[in-house]
Amino acid sequence: MSDHLPVPEDKFTFGLWTVGWQGTNTFGDPVRPRLDGADAVRRLAELGAHGITFHDDDLVPPGSSTAVRDGIVERFRGALDETGLTVPMVTTNLFSHPVFRDGGFTSNSRDVRRYALRKVMRNIELAVSLGAKTYVCWGGQDGAESEAGKDDAAALDRLREAFDILCSHVLEQGYDLRFAIEPKPNEPRGDTLLPTVGHALSFINGLEHPEMVGVNPEVGHEQMAGLNFTHGVAQALWAGKLFHIDLNGQRGVKYDQDLRFGAGDVEEAFFLVDLLERAGYDGPRHFDFKPPRTEDMSGVWESAAACMRNYLILRDKAAAFRADPDVVEALAAARVPELSEPTLGAGESLSELMAEEIDLDVVGERGYHFERLDQLALEHLFGVR
Amino acid sequence: MSDHLPVPEDKFTFGLWTVGWQGTNTFGDPVRPRLDGADAVRRLAELGAHGITFHDDDLVPPGSSTAVRDGIVERFRGALDETGLTVPMVTTNLFSHPVFRDGGFTSNSRDVRRYALRKVMRNIELAVSLGAKTYVCWGGQDGAESEAGKDDAAALDRLREAFDILCSHVLEQGYDLRFAIEPKPNEPRGDTLLPTVGHALSFINGLEHPEMVGVNPEVGHEQMAGLNFTHGVAQALWAGKLFHIDLNGQRGVKYDQDLRFGAGDVEEAFFLVDLLERAGYDGPRHFDFKPPRTEDMSGVWESAAACMRNYLILRDKAAAFRADPDVVEALAAARVPELSEPTLGAGESLSELMAEEIDLDVVGERGYHFERLDQLALEHLFGVR
Amino acid sequence: MSDHLPVPEDKFTFGLWTVGWQGTNTFGDPVRPRLDGADAVRRLAELGAHGITFHDDDLVPPGSSTAVRDGIVERFRGALDETGLTVPMVTTNLFSHPVFRDGGFTSNSRDVRRYALRKVMRNIELAVSLGAKTYVCWGGQDGAESEAGKDDAAALDRLREAFDILCSHVLEQGYDLRFAIEPKPNEPRGDTLLPTVGHALSFINGLEHPEMVGVNPEVGHEQMAGLNFTHGVAQALWAGKLFHIDLNGQRGVKYDQDLRFGAGDVEEAFFLVDLLERAGYDGPRHFDFKPPRTEDMSGVWESAAACMRNYLILRDKAAAFRADPDVVEALAAARVPELSEPTLGAGESLSELMAEEIDLDVVGERGYHFERLDQLALEHLFGVR
Amino acid sequence: MSDHLPVPEDKFTFGLWTVGWQGTNTFGDPVRPRLDGADAVRRLAELGAHGITFHDDDLVPPGSSTAVRDGIVERFRGALDETGLTVPMVTTNLFSHPVFRDGGFTSNSRDVRRYALRKVMRNIELAVSLGAKTYVCWGGQDGAESEAGKDDAAALDRLREAFDILCSHVLEQGYDLRFAIEPKPNEPRGDTLLPTVGHALSFINGLEHPEMVGVNPEVGHEQMAGLNFTHGVAQALWAGKLFHIDLNGQRGVKYDQDLRFGAGDVEEAFFLVDLLERAGYDGPRHFDFKPPRTEDMSGVWESAAACMRNYLILRDKAAAFRADPDVVEALAAARVPELSEPTLGAGESLSELMAEEIDLDVVGERGYHFERLDQLALEHLFGVR
Repeated sequence: MSDHLPVPEDKFTFGLWTVGWQGTNTFGDPVRPRLDGADAVRRLAELGAHGITFHDDDLVPPGSSTAVRDGIVERFRGALDETGLTVPMVTTNLFSHPVFRDGGFTSNSRDVRRYALRKVMRNIELAVSLGAKTYVCWGGQDGAESEAGKDDAAALDRLREAFDILCSHVLEQGYDLRFAIEPKPNEPRGDTLLPTVGHALSFINGLEHPEMVGVNPEVGHEQMAGLNFTHGVAQALWAGKLFHIDLNGQRGVKYDQDLRFGAGDVEEAFFLVDLLERAGYDGPRHFDFKPPRTEDMSGVWESAAACMRNYLILRDKAAAFRADPDVVEALAAARVPELSEPTLGAGESLSELMAEEIDLDVVGERGYHFERLDQLALEHLFGVR
Repeated sequence: MSDHLPVPEDKFTFGLWTVGWQGTNTFGDPVRPRLDGADAVRRLAELGAHGITFHDDDLVPPGSSTAVRDGIVERFRGALDETGLTVPMVTTNLFSHPVFRDGGFTSNSRDVRRYALRKVMRNIELAVSLGAKTYVCWGGQDGAESEAGKDDAAALDRLREAFDILCSHVLEQGYDLRFAIEPKPNEPRGDTLLPTVGHALSFINGLEHPEMVGVNPEVGHEQMAGLNFTHGVAQALWAGKLFHIDLNGQRGVKYDQDLRFGAGDVEEAFFLVDLLERAGYDGPRHFDFKPPRTEDMSGVWESAAACMRNYLILRDKAAAFRADPDVVEALAAARVPELSEPTLGAGESLSELMAEEIDLDVVGERGYHFERLDQLALEHLFGVR
Repeated sequence: MSDHLPVPEDKFTFGLWTVGWQGTNTFGDPVRPRLDGADAVRRLAELGAHGITFHDDDLVPPGSSTAVRDGIVERFRGALDETGLTVPMVTTNLFSHPVFRDGGFTSNSRDVRRYALRKVMRNIELAVSLGAKTYVCWGGQDGAESEAGKDDAAALDRLREAFDILCSHVLEQGYDLRFAIEPKPNEPRGDTLLPTVGHALSFINGLEHPEMVGVNPEVGHEQMAGLNFTHGVAQALWAGKLFHIDLNGQRGVKYDQDLRFGAGDVEEAFFLVDLLERAGYDGPRHFDFKPPRTEDMSGVWESAAACMRNYLILRDKAAAFRADPDVVEALAAARVPELSEPTLGAGESLSELMAEEIDLDVVGERGYHFERLDQLALEHLFGVR
Repeated sequence: MSDHLPVPEDKFTFGLWTVGWQGTNTFGDPVRPRLDGADAVRRLAELGAHGITFHDDDLVPPGSSTAVRDGIVERFRGALDETGLTVPMVTTNLFSHPVFRDGGFTSNSRDVRRYALRKVMRNIELAVSLGAKTYVCWGGQDGAESEAGKDDAAALDRLREAFDILCSHVLEQGYDLRFAIEPKPNEPRGDTLLPTVGHALSFINGLEHPEMVGVNPEVGHEQMAGLNFTHGVAQALWAGKLFHIDLNGQRGVKYDQDLRFGAGDVEEAFFLVDLLERAGYDGPRHFDFKPPRTEDMSGVWESAAACMRNYLILRDKAAAFRADPDVVEALAAARVPELSEPTLGAGESLSELMAEEIDLDVVGERGYHFERLDQLALEHLFGVR
């Protein structure tokens, strides 16, 4: 077994807002100092990361003068150049400022929607200049606590309008940039527009340039709705829409925990890594977590390192699971490969199908041996095989 | 206020399996006798319903001889003719029999998938002969408890294959029939394929004949995932895919309760009726509920009548809500109509948008008055306005 | 039907932190200005409230000098005297400051636990001086994200130690003050110590002065665990431990929403009021809600007024429900009064019981008519009876 | 590392209804044949189990003649004698039969309550004759879908009456038998009386013979309410009330899954075993799971064996975790042992405490290093240390 030390080729990336989270929440004041972007770059590079991502306001405090902004960006670029860390993805903060209290692209206020578009377009410039190929959009405040206050059809129209504008703009500028929508069921709003991977995939389909927009599923966001994350990612892959992914941990249906990757639903993390690796997903493995408020900065960096280490541990385990001859045999006993055979034979007519009969009693007794298979997975997870 | 007595024009329909539910579950034996289809027809007609729906096995006990089957169907038709009750929708039971223990269209067993197709196609004949225009597909056993046992991409391929086969068949036969997929997050399987309205909408998009397939959202199924049902239905309407709807009640994230419509999340029921009526949804209002095991047959019919009565009560309330001048004023104060204005002006260029500025401090102080609006809704619900 | 305008005799009270909530959460900056305690007193009095409650830090910003503190308290007292508003309950903020990041009474740090005790004892002086009879303790940060970091048995020992110290102190001082523990399942910690009403009731039982400690259940806190709030309050009443209550609203298992009372699970609110009124609960009806961030100060006061109005509306409805002869008859049909009859007859021996037989088939067919009863409740809620 | 083969000394026990579950649920017919009690005994003994438990109706089909009953019991005893398997616990089925549709001890029907008492008392005779020391009571149908139909105070009175009667009876008979209440939040009823470990612990406290009644917590039942099972068991241990335990698996807030032990929340299973072993719990490790309907009988026995194997694997891992010097050091860094120090010094007065001051800024910066500790646990779970 390897030592599980990450290297840039593993494509691990972190949001600046993750290691930089100061710990403010509804019930708690900040517990950690503001983290400078350039410092984060250097530290993440030391840990073996591939890249860093940010919201506009993470990097440059809102309200900064142009000079301050330029200085910050210059220092940030310097650190990137110095370390070789990349910026594969950038995103916009359309949620913290009071103007976004009813959303960004779907605020009832037209002036806010227009400001949101400007904020995104300005940050796209920075994103492109830093080499980002993916632009994530999380519409965290696009939602409602009460139905009457939000006209859903109009909200979906405005959201479509926003993406159509942004895609046209990117195409006109000739940027090599795609968008990835990040779904979430609730929090901070009572209910969020596009609450799950499925809702986002369906929405994308109605856009002018659907090929430019995919999804950025987050482990905890689907699990907050009690949904199986691996199945959701599998459907996104099936639709050709897994443009980016947010890895973290969550312990069930509750507030958004953003635990480090590997914590929370451990077996799900195993199957997720198994899926990503087998599906040949080659985008960043992006960690979007929040080091708990109990941690000081040393704990922050330990948890960041652990995110990567856990992915590598699980990658090894998943590979060993698939290579295990007992697993291969158990998959066959569970008839897993049989699901890849078309139900209708090549050239078979429906009348041929209709003429067939099976003995329901005999077929009804058939067992699927999924328990054996799942136990093999668990034992690989435990490292006892 | 009217007396809230239903008439066929209200388009209320019931599954035969709802009033006919005998009460068997994991922890309980049946508590009520089997209900004959023809008897159900007569009773529902008396109550003011518009139609009845059924799974093949609800109407004809599995394993019945052709003679028995023909007799049952004849009596059922007779009762329909006698009462004028319609059969706007039919569906298939692909879950109760042991052969479906790993699913129907996506069972790992190819012979089961083929049998599932035959079972559906045979029942489509009956459905069409009874005048049904919608065929609902709930893949309740299409799912998994453990990830390794189910290849999601293959499962989605097989599901697509099934719908492509069925749609082609219906087209070839010239039937006037559309399909409606019913999503559910879990139960009886640990996780279900197509867990939400969003996942189903996205799946439909990849079919050969997407125009023939829509969704049949069920109140409780979305609420089992903690999702807002009204928002989900609104997205289905926006996508032009609300082909049918299952009305019932649920009290939060737990097992599938199938309470009578109106019970459970009462305010959500209000906003759902408000949405359906305003959106001009003209399909059946189909009740898919389970009278609790505590009820005898008199309680069954009382709960069925209450489903319809609650819809009518809420329909009146929703109309009164929208007609209330205070509500109109509150909607304007909440800037709800403003969301229907395009964010970009007609003919406006992006550079014009980019040149605009707003005073963030001033706009940030703006309140949206959603509480007033929601309180008005609540007071209409309470009948105190 | 009355006009539902509150008067002090209705015993409605509000936390200063509710109408004073500025809107800071994990994803959002403050949207409203700080509210002065004396201003809150005056406004609440105008609205018809009976009292105001506060955390030490709500009233006096942490770090204030003694002079500033004294000035604030004096202005606050002045407003109370002027308006007649009371302070029936006070509580301590043991969660916002970074020192409490691992809890207050059960922080792993002994110096923090000691500071927490001092902070409570100091505020008890103020509470008593203002006439408060109840001291609420919400141990929001007493919990854990990871099991290894918290020794539960030690945590329960320390929590017991804290309450034993506080009770002894209150007894020694001769204060007329009781404590009320407020349970919550999670948030801000991954899991909270004493997660439900039941856990708190059981804990109290092991204290040195159990008679001095009760519970302060909060609607949303129990509903965050998917529990039925009315049943929880009923058990607290049964145990003689409903010392205080926090009224608000929640829409299912998700983050702590703190909606205004009446919103969320509407039917549950109806049955809660029904229970409180019938049980003769005579403590404050305390609203612990958070006006959504979408509201400006006018919306804050509207939502506060709506909390009281909804209680009064539901109080009228519950009384009408109980007075309705159809309900009385339906209760009898549902055998509700029969549950109050002891199962064993007066003086009956077990051998007499054992000798009895019933016809299981006959008794098994018995229906309980709960649907009729629940529908009557719903129709009273709707105001259509 | 051992080979993880169970022996009777490990005290693993199984409900006859677990390996004997035929697979009936709301949406599915039985998929497996009825399992004879004597056959189950032999098979479990071969697998290394210590004991078997049963509901009265699991062993003897309801309605059996005395002769049939006696024959079954004799064969069962014979198999026990032959194999040395024990019966440490017995329970009663007060839920399947239609008479229990509104509960057993708290049915609104007095005749049903009386029948429930008789059914329990008769089965206690059998339990005692087989050497059982624990009698589990799961009141699965004691609950409600609608508040109006159930008077909670009366229900709690009747439940107390039932336990007082049963305890008196056991005392009079001189039986060496204790009762263990099994809480569950919902399913099959909408809400269950005594929904969590906490509610049950509190209820017990009001009994005539509280020392004779403890709890039987079940992994999945607490997790269905989103509660942390380890914390719940810890509180039961702290109260001296962990009389028995039901081990299984659950994947979040949904229907009762009853997965094999080890599946579901894997990290929680690790910490649970860690707690039980460290706390010196010496009762049975009782598996209450349902082999999924996808399994045939070979899968049933594989899943039963896996329950035991997973416990043994986790027992080894937990021991290694506690013995790891890095863990010991990390616990100290996390100040875990410090929580066992009383907050007040021996003989310290409150005025001494009050006189102390701490530097809030300095203490506020303190990190707790829980992430390091949790990562160490995870790495032991993964077997990479």
